[in-house]
Amino acid sequence: MIERITIETPEQGLFEITDRIDALVEDADLDEGLCTLFLQHTSASLLIQENAASAARRDLEDFFMDLVPEDNSLYTHTAEGPDDMPAHIKAALTQTSLQIPITDGELALGTWQGIFLFEHRWDGRRRNLVVHLGK
Amino acid sequence: MIERITIETPEQGLFEITDRIDALVEDADLDEGLCTLFLQHTSASLLIQENAASAARRDLEDFFMDLVPEDNSLYTHTAEGPDDMPAHIKAALTQTSLQIPITDGELALGTWQGIFLFEHRWDGRRRNLVVHLGK
Amino acid sequence: MIERITIETPEQGLFEITDRIDALVEDADLDEGLCTLFLQHTSASLLIQENAASAARRDLEDFFMDLVPEDNSLYTHTAEGPDDMPAHIKAALTQTSLQIPITDGELALGTWQGIFLFEHRWDGRRRNLVVHLGK
Repeated sequence: MIERITIETPEQGLFEITDRIDALVEDADLDEGLCTLFLQHTSASLLIQENAASAARRDLEDFFMDLVPEDNSLYTHTAEGPDDMPAHIKAALTQTSLQIPITDGELALGTWQGIFLFEHRWDGRRRNLVVHLGK
Repeated sequence: MIERITIETPEQGLFEITDRIDALVEDADLDEGLCTLFLQHTSASLLIQENAASAARRDLEDFFMDLVPEDNSLYTHTAEGPDDMPAHIKAALTQTSLQIPITDGELALGTWQGIFLFEHRWDGRRRNLVVHLGK
Repeated sequence: MIERITIETPEQGLFEITDRIDALVEDADLDEGLCTLFLQHTSASLLIQENAASAARRDLEDFFMDLVPEDNSLYTHTAEGPDDMPAHIKAALTQTSLQIPITDGELALGTWQGIFLFEHRWDGRRRNLVVHLGK
């Protein structure tokens, strides 16, 4: 089964989408299976990360910002702004697709795991996620 | 089919778990299919890497240690020790889920590929891995 | 269903393989499903990236070259040349397996997404890719 959801990101950063995926899995009524998320973009990405401490989220955002500076002098593909090429690189370093098993009708996430959309463009976007639910 | 295994990591570093997954695949008696590994943690991760040279394993561990220093002055989320925030970042840079096709009843790994659990905390932990075996 | 393809890489860099995978999906005649790519190597990797601007591709290659220098003094596993250990590290930072949903008989890639094989060795190689196509 395939579902599609759109996520409006307000700005750069990590945004938790676990509730959105939980709801799809509940509706799918699969006792056991596999949930695959696929993001149809190359300037945003997916990540499973700690969902309790917001300081951990900020440190993660800061690490990627330092590792991949938004400095046009470092890149040749600069026509779409200083946040564009770093966005592609940060997407390459994280995930475009994620898989989470389904057990007892629910995502088998660990206690501290949340699913995040990692927006790499400054102004946010309308992001399309394709969700495959299989046995 | 879903299986669960636990892996006790003694300390930080890469630990090969290929044999554990091979055994699950053998028991599953699937001629052809897909094996998905999902680690229920955000301070350890999964990696498919070269399984022959232990020097390659150490160089890989060292690279990540240099890229993500265990230095509390770099992070704000420091309550759980200087290895905690770097652990989340190293997990973000590697994998929480992995997929390996099954052919002729076995994992279709390349000649030099092994499956590794990458422990990022100093003292090791009891780690839970959920394995989905599908057609 | 499992398919196998080989890709001859001429040299280091990103090489688009979307057409090769499109052709497999078309032959599979699946209306809806999931396509999993698995590369049987640890010195090359997979990436979904922007497929329009070749400057973006070069910037991405350059970023990884700067992040993981081909300098033997940094590594102990040097017997196979200065491009070998960096190859393993770049593979660890990107993907060995990728999943793309299939909708309406086609890969559900976004408008600007292409599938790339990322060759990390100087002289290129014959690379084996295992493709799983499931419902």
